[in-house]
Amino acid sequence: MMHLPLGVRTLTEFGARHFASSRVGDYQEDGSIHWQSYTDIADSAARLANALTDLGFRDSDRVGTFMWNCSEHLQAYLAIPSMGGVMHTINCRLSPEHIAYIINHAEDRFLIVDGRLESVLAPALADTPALEKILVVNPTGELAGDPRVIDFADVTAACEPSFSWPEPDENRAAGICYTSGTTGNPKGVVYSQKTTYLHALASRAVDTFGVNERDTILMLPSMFHANAWGFPYSGWLSGADMVMPGPHMQVRHLEAMIEQARPTLTAMVPTVLSDLIRADEDKGLDLSCFRSIICGGSAVPSSMIEAAWERWKVPVVQGWGMTETSPMCVLSHPPKDLGDTSDTRWRMKSGRPVPGIEVRVVDAADRELPNDGQSVGELQLRGTWVTGSYLKTETDAFTDDGWLKTGDVGHIDARGYVQLTDRTKDVIKSGGEWISSVDLEDALLKHPDVLEVAVIATPDERWQERPLAVVVPKSDKPLAAGELRGFLLEKVAKFWIPEYWAFVDEIAKTSIGKIDKKTLRDQRGSAAFDVETCYDLDAAATSGGRQ
Amino acid sequence: MMHLPLGVRTLTEFGARHFASSRVGDYQEDGSIHWQSYTDIADSAARLANALTDLGFRDSDRVGTFMWNCSEHLQAYLAIPSMGGVMHTINCRLSPEHIAYIINHAEDRFLIVDGRLESVLAPALADTPALEKILVVNPTGELAGDPRVIDFADVTAACEPSFSWPEPDENRAAGICYTSGTTGNPKGVVYSQKTTYLHALASRAVDTFGVNERDTILMLPSMFHANAWGFPYSGWLSGADMVMPGPHMQVRHLEAMIEQARPTLTAMVPTVLSDLIRADEDKGLDLSCFRSIICGGSAVPSSMIEAAWERWKVPVVQGWGMTETSPMCVLSHPPKDLGDTSDTRWRMKSGRPVPGIEVRVVDAADRELPNDGQSVGELQLRGTWVTGSYLKTETDAFTDDGWLKTGDVGHIDARGYVQLTDRTKDVIKSGGEWISSVDLEDALLKHPDVLEVAVIATPDERWQERPLAVVVPKSDKPLAAGELRGFLLEKVAKFWIPEYWAFVDEIAKTSIGKIDKKTLRDQRGSAAFDVETCYDLDAAATSGGRQ
Repeated sequence: MMHLPLGVRTLTEFGARHFASSRVGDYQEDGSIHWQSYTDIADSAARLANALTDLGFRDSDRVGTFMWNCSEHLQAYLAIPSMGGVMHTINCRLSPEHIAYIINHAEDRFLIVDGRLESVLAPALADTPALEKILVVNPTGELAGDPRVIDFADVTAACEPSFSWPEPDENRAAGICYTSGTTGNPKGVVYSQKTTYLHALASRAVDTFGVNERDTILMLPSMFHANAWGFPYSGWLSGADMVMPGPHMQVRHLEAMIEQARPTLTAMVPTVLSDLIRADEDKGLDLSCFRSIICGGSAVPSSMIEAAWERWKVPVVQGWGMTETSPMCVLSHPPKDLGDTSDTRWRMKSGRPVPGIEVRVVDAADRELPNDGQSVGELQLRGTWVTGSYLKTETDAFTDDGWLKTGDVGHIDARGYVQLTDRTKDVIKSGGEWISSVDLEDALLKHPDVLEVAVIATPDERWQERPLAVVVPKSDKPLAAGELRGFLLEKVAKFWIPEYWAFVDEIAKTSIGKIDKKTLRDQRGSAAFDVETCYDLDAAATSGGRQ
Repeated sequence: MMHLPLGVRTLTEFGARHFASSRVGDYQEDGSIHWQSYTDIADSAARLANALTDLGFRDSDRVGTFMWNCSEHLQAYLAIPSMGGVMHTINCRLSPEHIAYIINHAEDRFLIVDGRLESVLAPALADTPALEKILVVNPTGELAGDPRVIDFADVTAACEPSFSWPEPDENRAAGICYTSGTTGNPKGVVYSQKTTYLHALASRAVDTFGVNERDTILMLPSMFHANAWGFPYSGWLSGADMVMPGPHMQVRHLEAMIEQARPTLTAMVPTVLSDLIRADEDKGLDLSCFRSIICGGSAVPSSMIEAAWERWKVPVVQGWGMTETSPMCVLSHPPKDLGDTSDTRWRMKSGRPVPGIEVRVVDAADRELPNDGQSVGELQLRGTWVTGSYLKTETDAFTDDGWLKTGDVGHIDARGYVQLTDRTKDVIKSGGEWISSVDLEDALLKHPDVLEVAVIATPDERWQERPLAVVVPKSDKPLAAGELRGFLLEKVAKFWIPEYWAFVDEIAKTSIGKIDKKTLRDQRGSAAFDVETCYDLDAAATSGGRQ
C-alpha cells in the first residue's frame, strides 16, 4: 500500500476541494448569522498558515488558541496541524494561573485570541515569557499594552489564500488539550495526526455521529475542549454546514440559531438540553430539525430523553467520552434486535463502544470482571485514539498492560453496552455496599418539582458513608425531604434512600458545565449549605395521590 | 496516543463481542437459507485458526482461498489475517495456468477450497509443489487422490472455539488479490492490516456505503475479488446480517434470496441489475427492500438507474474502484445542493472520491489537467488504501511522484466528481478526436430493442479509427443499423455515430462479468462476427414515430 501519512492535511484539502459551497455561520450578538463558504474558510486558513510562516513559525511549533467557537477558530483547526504545527486549544474557563501554566507547559510560541476574551486572558499573560506573538481576532484593545500583541486581520489580510501543505508523519502531534482536572495542574493530552484523522473518519459512521454532507452542525460543545467532539474535523471532511455560537450560549441565542439554521446535529451537556426543554414548555421551541442530539458530560436523566422524543421525535444519544479519548468512546445507540429509536431503556445506557475502542471492567485488584450487566468496578479502556500518556507528566493513570484507568465506575453487559454508575471518587460506600449517585439523581429528577439534583457521599457513623441529596426545587414552593423519600420508595433499593437532604438555589458546575461534586463536597464540609436529616416517608407520594 | 496496531484482529473481535446475535445466511440450492449467528461464525473462525496452527501454520504464512461466497469463506476472512497470516483470495474463474501461477507466486502454504469448486481446481494443482495442505469444505471426492487434501470439517471440528489473536504490526500484509489482467500474468495487490481496517471504517460512512447494524447485505460481489467491496469486513465490524449466495447467481436464485432475506444493501455489475429489472418486467420482483444498490465494474446505463428508481425507489450508486484501491474509490452520491436521491444526472457520474482517496487527470505528458468537467485525460490516484506496488513484480503503473496510473480515461469537475469516459485502451481516436465508447453505449441502451451493446474501435482509412457497435437485440426481430443511427442523432455528436455495426447473440465477458473488449477486438480482427457498414439515418426513429 502507498505510504501516505494519515493526517489533518488530508481532511483540510478534502473539504476544500469537494465542498466549496458548504457553509460555516458565525452567530452574531444581534441574532443574525454571518455565513461564509468552505472556500472562504479554506482561503483564510491558508492565509493564516502564511501569516504564521511570516512570523517565524517553524515545523512542530505549538500554537495556542484562546477562543470561543467561531470561524477563525475553525481556520486554526485546519491550518495549524496541516502546516505541521500543534494546535493547543486552551480552556478559557480555567483560572489565570492554570492558563499561564499550560501555555508555558505546552511551550506555545504563538497564541491566537478571540478579542471577546482579552479581559479573561489578560491576568494570565504576565508570566508567559516563551510566548512570542499573540494574534488577536477583532481586538478590543485590552491587551494593547503587551508588545507581543498583533491584530489577526493585519497579519493575515495581505497573505496569499493558498498554501502548500506538507505531509507530516502520521505519528506526530497535531493537537494538545489539557484536562480540566479538579485536582493538581491540568494534564496535557496529545492528539496525533493519525488519530485526529481516524476519529474524524470514524465519526462519519451511521452508528456513531453519522456526520455527512447534508448535516448542519450546531457547534455547541466547546472547541477548546477535546476538539468539540471532533465535529470541526468530521464536519469539514464531510462537507457539513456548521453554526458557530461564539460566546452566545444563553437559551434565547440558542433559540435564534435553531430557528434560523435548522441544524440537524449537535452535542450538549444535559443542563443545556434541560434549558431547551424548559424553553419549549414556556413558549414553544421547535427542535424537530435535529436528527440526533448527542448528550454527554454527565448522565442524561431518562425524563429528558423521553421529553426530546415525545416533543420533537428527536433521539438523544448519550456519549461517554473524555479528553483522553479524542473524545468519542461509547454511544447509546439501541441494538437492532431489541430497541427502536424511541427506546429509552437503551438510550439510558452510557453506550456501546465505537469500533476502535475496547472497554473492560475490573475490580479493586485490577482483575477483569464478567460482562454480565451487574458486576460493578472501574472501567478501563484502550483504543487507537486513546491517549497513552500525558505530556511531560508522570502518571498512574495507566495499567501495566497499557489500559487507561478512567476513574469511572460501572458495569458492562453481554452486548458490550457500558453503564456508568459513578465516578470512582463519587461512589458512596454504605456499609460495604456501593450506592450509585447517578441512579439516585436520575430517579429524583423524575419528580415534577425537582429542577436539579446532585447526590454526594456524606460521612455517617454507622454506615461509614450515606448519600446526601442536594436539590434545586423547580419553583419557590418548598419541597419536603419526606415527600422525596416517599417518591424514591418504588424506584430504588430502600437502603439507597438518602436521609440527608439540602435544598439550594444553585449547584456548582465545572468549567465545562458538569455538576462539580468536588466543590459540593467542599461546601458540605464547610457547611456552605444547610443539611437536614429526615427519616420520614410521605405515604401520599408513594400512592401516586400527589397533586 | 496508544500504539495499538490497526488491523483485522480489532474488527474480528469487535463484531464477535458486540453483535452475538447478528446473522450470516448461506443460500442453499433448494432455495432455503441456512442462518448462523455471529457467535457461530466467530467460534468457527477460532476453530479454523486452531486447526491451521495444528497443521503447522507459522506467522505471516500465506493461506489461499478458492471458494464461492459462503460462511466458511467469511471464517477465513476473519481468522487468517487475525492470526497474523495473509489471506490470498483466488479468482476461480482464472485459467488453470493462472491459478497455479498465483498459488506459486504468492507462496501459499495452505489452501481452503469450496467442495463445489474441486473440479475447477483439479487441473491447476499438478504444478503447485510448495502448497502443503488443502482443506476442502464439503468435499466431493474429486481431489481425493491428492495426498495434501484433508476435510475441512475433520480438522476444525475438534478444535477449541477460542483463539488468542496476536496483534500483528499494522503495516504487515493481511490479504493478497491478483488482478484479473487481460494481458500477461495476473499481478498481486497486497492489502495491509491497516488499510483493511481503514477501508472497513470508511465504508461505514453515510456518504460511502453506510454499512450499519441494521443492514442485511446481499453478498453478490465475489469474495475472491477485491474483498467483495470490503463488505465482509465492514459488515462484520458493523454487525450487519449477510446473505451468501454460494455459486447460485442465477436470477431465480437471486429472487429467492431477495424475497426471503429482504436485503438492504448490495453491489453488482450492471449486467446483474439488468437481469433483475427484466425479471421484474417478466413477472414482478420487489426490490424495494434495498436502501442502496452499489453498481460497478462498468458504466451503468442511465436507463437502469432510472428504472431502479421508478420501480422501487432504490438509488443506484455507481462505484469506480479496482483491485488496487481495496476497492472503494469514488462513489456517485449526488451533492446536497444540486441533487436529490432521484437525480440521475449525478448518479450517472462515476462519482466523488471518498475521503482517503485523491484523483487527478493528466494529459499524455503527465501534466495535470484542470478540473473543469471537460478536459479528458488519464485518471491517476493515490490514497491510504491504494496499492503502491505489485507483489514481486516490476511495473510502470506508477508515476514518478507516486500516483497510480489507472488506465482509465475521463474528466473531473469542479466539485471533484470523476466521469470515466473509457479505458485508455478502449478509447476511439477518430481523426484526432476522442470518442467515448461508454457514452455511445449508454445512448444505444436507451433504445427499447437493444439488450446489450459494446462499442469498440475499428480501423478506418480516413479517420484512423471509427466506432464499431456490437449489439445484442432484445428479441429475435432484426434490428436495422440505420434505425439505430437515427436514434443516436439527437443524443450524441454527429461525428460519433458509428458506421460499423454487428448484431450478435452474445457479448464476451471477463471472469468478473465485465464486457471483455479485448476479446471483442480479437473477434473483430478474426472476423468472428459479421460487420455491416451503414450510412443511412432512419428518419422515423428521429421523429419519435417509431412503434
